[in-house]
Amino acid sequence: MSYGVGIDLGGTNIKTALVSKTGAIAASYQTPTPLAKQAQTVLAEMAQAVQTMVAKSGVPWREIDQVGVGTPGSVDQKEGMVIYANNLPFDHTPLGPYLQKALGVPVYVCNDADAAAWGELCAGAGQGLENMVAITLGTGIGAGQIVRGKLYVGSHGAGGEWGHTVLEATGPQCNCGRKGCWEVFCAVPTLVRQTKRAMKKNPSSKLWQVAGSLAEVEGKTVFDAIRLGDETAAGVLDRYLDWLAVGIGNVINAMDPEMVCIGGGLSGAGPLLLEPLRKKIVLYKRKGETIIALAALGNAAGLVGASMLSQSNG
Amino acid sequence: MSYGVGIDLGGTNIKTALVSKTGAIAASYQTPTPLAKQAQTVLAEMAQAVQTMVAKSGVPWREIDQVGVGTPGSVDQKEGMVIYANNLPFDHTPLGPYLQKALGVPVYVCNDADAAAWGELCAGAGQGLENMVAITLGTGIGAGQIVRGKLYVGSHGAGGEWGHTVLEATGPQCNCGRKGCWEVFCAVPTLVRQTKRAMKKNPSSKLWQVAGSLAEVEGKTVFDAIRLGDETAAGVLDRYLDWLAVGIGNVINAMDPEMVCIGGGLSGAGPLLLEPLRKKIVLYKRKGETIIALAALGNAAGLVGASMLSQSNG
Repeated sequence: MSYGVGIDLGGTNIKTALVSKTGAIAASYQTPTPLAKQAQTVLAEMAQAVQTMVAKSGVPWREIDQVGVGTPGSVDQKEGMVIYANNLPFDHTPLGPYLQKALGVPVYVCNDADAAAWGELCAGAGQGLENMVAITLGTGIGAGQIVRGKLYVGSHGAGGEWGHTVLEATGPQCNCGRKGCWEVFCAVPTLVRQTKRAMKKNPSSKLWQVAGSLAEVEGKTVFDAIRLGDETAAGVLDRYLDWLAVGIGNVINAMDPEMVCIGGGLSGAGPLLLEPLRKKIVLYKRKGETIIALAALGNAAGLVGASMLSQSNG
Repeated sequence: MSYGVGIDLGGTNIKTALVSKTGAIAASYQTPTPLAKQAQTVLAEMAQAVQTMVAKSGVPWREIDQVGVGTPGSVDQKEGMVIYANNLPFDHTPLGPYLQKALGVPVYVCNDADAAAWGELCAGAGQGLENMVAITLGTGIGAGQIVRGKLYVGSHGAGGEWGHTVLEATGPQCNCGRKGCWEVFCAVPTLVRQTKRAMKKNPSSKLWQVAGSLAEVEGKTVFDAIRLGDETAAGVLDRYLDWLAVGIGNVINAMDPEMVCIGGGLSGAGPLLLEPLRKKIVLYKRKGETIIALAALGNAAGLVGASMLSQSNG
């Protein structure tokens, strides 16, 4: 057998997995991302995590062909360099060359949302599609774009930043310097904040019962309360989905893909998210329909995609 | 010699030209678009215009290989069918097959903004580029996208509708059904309307001197008054460019092309439009810069592009 290794680097965790050529996960391991000021500390922890994972799997190193890394931020794929990443101490950091030296196998570096898109294309919801946009709802909004069966990252590796397209030019400030970016309205922390605000206004809402306390509110809290028939929660989701629909409508009008695939933790809400969302999307007249689907690989999309992308580019 | 014919179908005029393989215009002719309720009437006039143009040119029909048509609206390129077009009586209209029968040469049909993008790529500002988005500011906003050296129209031929991406979700109603589309803020009629409003408020503005009367205001009026040092006109343009910059920022963050090329009548304003625009565009951090340029072919981009696209697909 031969395998690839996938690394999904996040602000919270370093996830690693041994991935087969068909996208199956044979082993996995994760460790917290060090809160370091030095890029070096994060890189060393990544190499260590891969070594631990491979050692535990019992698979000999000679069966590992490549390592693929999905990282937040913008990436120079050719150099394996992370130009910049929010929440990580990267600034023109040669992530690829470092890991390649530490692990002794070729390393391919890409944006995490691109990795997730590739994972869904090769082994998830988008199998066999030519044109797809995969949106990941998380701490921010990531997007990976597949054009004519290949990842499209733009001319400077900075494409697909749909999270930083403006939906409300007079809206709240975004940390990117613009105002009213999609990310401001639809990143998970916004949903959490809106849930808390609704709880404060509505002491009888079942959101309190579901969450326990304001401090324990998370993205899925609102869905859990809706399942209990809570009207306040339904209102919070309704407003959130209004914005999500505007953003997805923009993606479809610009890219007209066969599918927009929605991933990240919230996609676990299933039809509770998908069905009302579909009804809210208003489109320009067109010949065919873009499928709105949920990611099939869930949180593993990035791991699987990073590994498979390294194989296809290796 | 062998030539192609380009047709640029607009709501106002049918423009036709004889175009060489390198994109040079050898002859041209235009006629008003009939204000007809029947698609047939428009199609017959298009065929007639081409025949008139070719007859006048003195070039024998046997030297004409192909006809390329750029039309507003969404197009089924494979069938040569216009699915729908604002301001034209088209509804699943077999424009390509009709002209092919009438003219006896292969006919290729595409969206007018796509034709303009292809023209700029092959013979204008974008020569040699891999990834480019060409924005045409006119009665509406059209966009043509070049990805990896080829036109990208999406999976259902409806991609590139950047004019119908939302910049202000709580903004004014757009005729597409959404609110606050880019087109609502930056189509030429909006600039004209804003110019008139500013004139009413400022009776001493040089806009009056330039335009003569409210009824004579056009897109370029504001630029002509700015050249005379008019502050009111400068204010109108400033607000218009704020919105144009938001839209172009979105295009760049999503597509990260080598170039965004701005065409349509207003691009004739040159540095007066381009320089302040560039300063207003706020971008997500990235490795390289997208060039903001003006269309080099001016109003001929669509004609040249339609002809050249028909050749490359012929």
